[in-house]
Amino acid sequence: MNIDTLLKEPPQWCNGLGPYAEIVLSSRVRLARNLSDFLFTNRIDKQTSTEIKELLKQTQAESKEIKEMFFIDMETLADIDKVVLMERHLISKALIDNSIDKAAIINKDETVSIMANEEDHLRLQSFEPGLNLHKAYETIDKIDTQIEKKLNYAFSSEFGYLTACPTNTGTGIRISVLIHLPGLVHSGEIRNVLETVSKIGLSIRGFYGEGTQIEGNFFQISNQATLGKSEQEIIDTLNKAVLQIIELERNSREILIENAKNQTEDKIWRAYGILKYATLVSSKEFINLSSAVRLGVGLGIVRSCSIKNLNRLLILTKPAHLQKMAGRLMSPDERDIERAIYVRKTLE
Amino acid sequence: MNIDTLLKEPPQWCNGLGPYAEIVLSSRVRLARNLSDFLFTNRIDKQTSTEIKELLKQTQAESKEIKEMFFIDMETLADIDKVVLMERHLISKALIDNSIDKAAIINKDETVSIMANEEDHLRLQSFEPGLNLHKAYETIDKIDTQIEKKLNYAFSSEFGYLTACPTNTGTGIRISVLIHLPGLVHSGEIRNVLETVSKIGLSIRGFYGEGTQIEGNFFQISNQATLGKSEQEIIDTLNKAVLQIIELERNSREILIENAKNQTEDKIWRAYGILKYATLVSSKEFINLSSAVRLGVGLGIVRSCSIKNLNRLLILTKPAHLQKMAGRLMSPDERDIERAIYVRKTLE
Repeated sequence: MNIDTLLKEPPQWCNGLGPYAEIVLSSRVRLARNLSDFLFTNRIDKQTSTEIKELLKQTQAESKEIKEMFFIDMETLADIDKVVLMERHLISKALIDNSIDKAAIINKDETVSIMANEEDHLRLQSFEPGLNLHKAYETIDKIDTQIEKKLNYAFSSEFGYLTACPTNTGTGIRISVLIHLPGLVHSGEIRNVLETVSKIGLSIRGFYGEGTQIEGNFFQISNQATLGKSEQEIIDTLNKAVLQIIELERNSREILIENAKNQTEDKIWRAYGILKYATLVSSKEFINLSSAVRLGVGLGIVRSCSIKNLNRLLILTKPAHLQKMAGRLMSPDERDIERAIYVRKTLE
Repeated sequence: MNIDTLLKEPPQWCNGLGPYAEIVLSSRVRLARNLSDFLFTNRIDKQTSTEIKELLKQTQAESKEIKEMFFIDMETLADIDKVVLMERHLISKALIDNSIDKAAIINKDETVSIMANEEDHLRLQSFEPGLNLHKAYETIDKIDTQIEKKLNYAFSSEFGYLTACPTNTGTGIRISVLIHLPGLVHSGEIRNVLETVSKIGLSIRGFYGEGTQIEGNFFQISNQATLGKSEQEIIDTLNKAVLQIIELERNSREILIENAKNQTEDKIWRAYGILKYATLVSSKEFINLSSAVRLGVGLGIVRSCSIKNLNRLLILTKPAHLQKMAGRLMSPDERDIERAIYVRKTLE
């Protein structure tokens, strides 16, 4: 597989076409699975990791659902390509560290990725644009069932799926939604939302998950508990919470427009004007300015730009993507120039 | 005369066509004159002021040079129109206070204005675009000579023309140049320039003369001494100094582009982008942002906008002009909206 084939188009999860796409960027369901005949990843040596990788490869060849997907041996990838995959959310940071053998299987649309030798032996992920957790689960559940036919998953009748970290034990499921909440941030109500969300066992983090900063009013909402509830219950709880947050966000936006129409429009158009004309744009500034423009698109103020384009830009203006597209390594200063050029071109 | 006739076009001094127009906005020569048969303006009553006004009107009718110009009785003007004239630099703040009779004579191009009952009985002014002090002086000198044939100027063979304030006594001349020095401000060299300029008897002030703030890197350079030197000497000194400052400014701009090309271009284009898209723009912000765009035009970076348009905007976005054009009085907030609309339209 040539990674450049993947790069031709941004991942499908950012096509801006899913339900509630003006507020929810994407939905993700991830399953953590381990093989019963091996120690957990943090205890295995290189040889065992190769064995697991080969098992996955073999399983792929025999599984109708994943047969046609790209198998990527991480060792064969250039460093920049690894970061490109990470910027697309297809692999995690853990998969970049190559002390042991690691691999990923990715489908053409980039809506499915299976990682081998991450924190768990297998991490199965499915992505959907907008709020579409049930569909994302359906996809990955099918793949999981197929793989389970070929491989012995570590499973306890008492605890469910066993995982390297006990927080994943049980269903092994982590579902998350990437959501844009400028209205709630502006009104200050986001504090209450965060509190309520954490009380019902959900967590809110930044764009790239655990330990990452909240930027551009983007939040990642996900479940914490994986044990004691069925997958469907966990999905339903999160889905319901997200629908309520969407409602609150919409109210906040309405109030914002009612109370500060001129100031809000001005802020949105200034952000648009800067993105359209600046010749140096940092990654952080892009996220913040595009957040204002995204709000403008959502409010029907900005019509010359689509959620799809803003989503694409969020991925394509990341450092590794810029360098990959330019075909050369660049300093942060050079990237700021390249990013500005790319943003201007896209907004034209 | 209907002031709306004047308003159809911005004053000719801001047409951006004069020498060094990318750095020098305009040149102005002002002569202070008093009539020997009357007390100075601050000592006269309403009746005497009317008499002086009528004398000027009569003189106009008999003088070829100024016959065709508009005679404006200040009492007949709406408050907003007075401010419009002030924003165009055609009359001074002193002419707005109507405790006594005041008047102005203005030519069609708005390159000449004669004020009656300002600080002195008569203030004669001529404006030129760019750096063109000699031409401005030539124009106003001719008019002065004509008027002198009809009216008895207060003149002492020892002191020259007598004026209400001793700082104007002698030639009664004040010449000034409105100059844009972003390069010198950025390099910090402006301090040395200010010091040197004041040592050779010149003064530097803000956009609207004495007591006004320096905004948008615009400076007004003018002579201080009016006594002991001929008009030509005073003009030559200022002209020479301005030519040197222009040279220094050009050097500073070159160095700026050499040392910080990317940052400078970015700053210029951001200012342009904000002006092109913002929906609320204050007067002060317009002056500052348009200063950056003006630098961009001067450096050949911005080609989609002319010095002429920037000059026009400097005048036409002033509070009274905006209200005059809209045909209604507006609050500062409403003006910020109107200003943004007008700026966007002009930059399109």
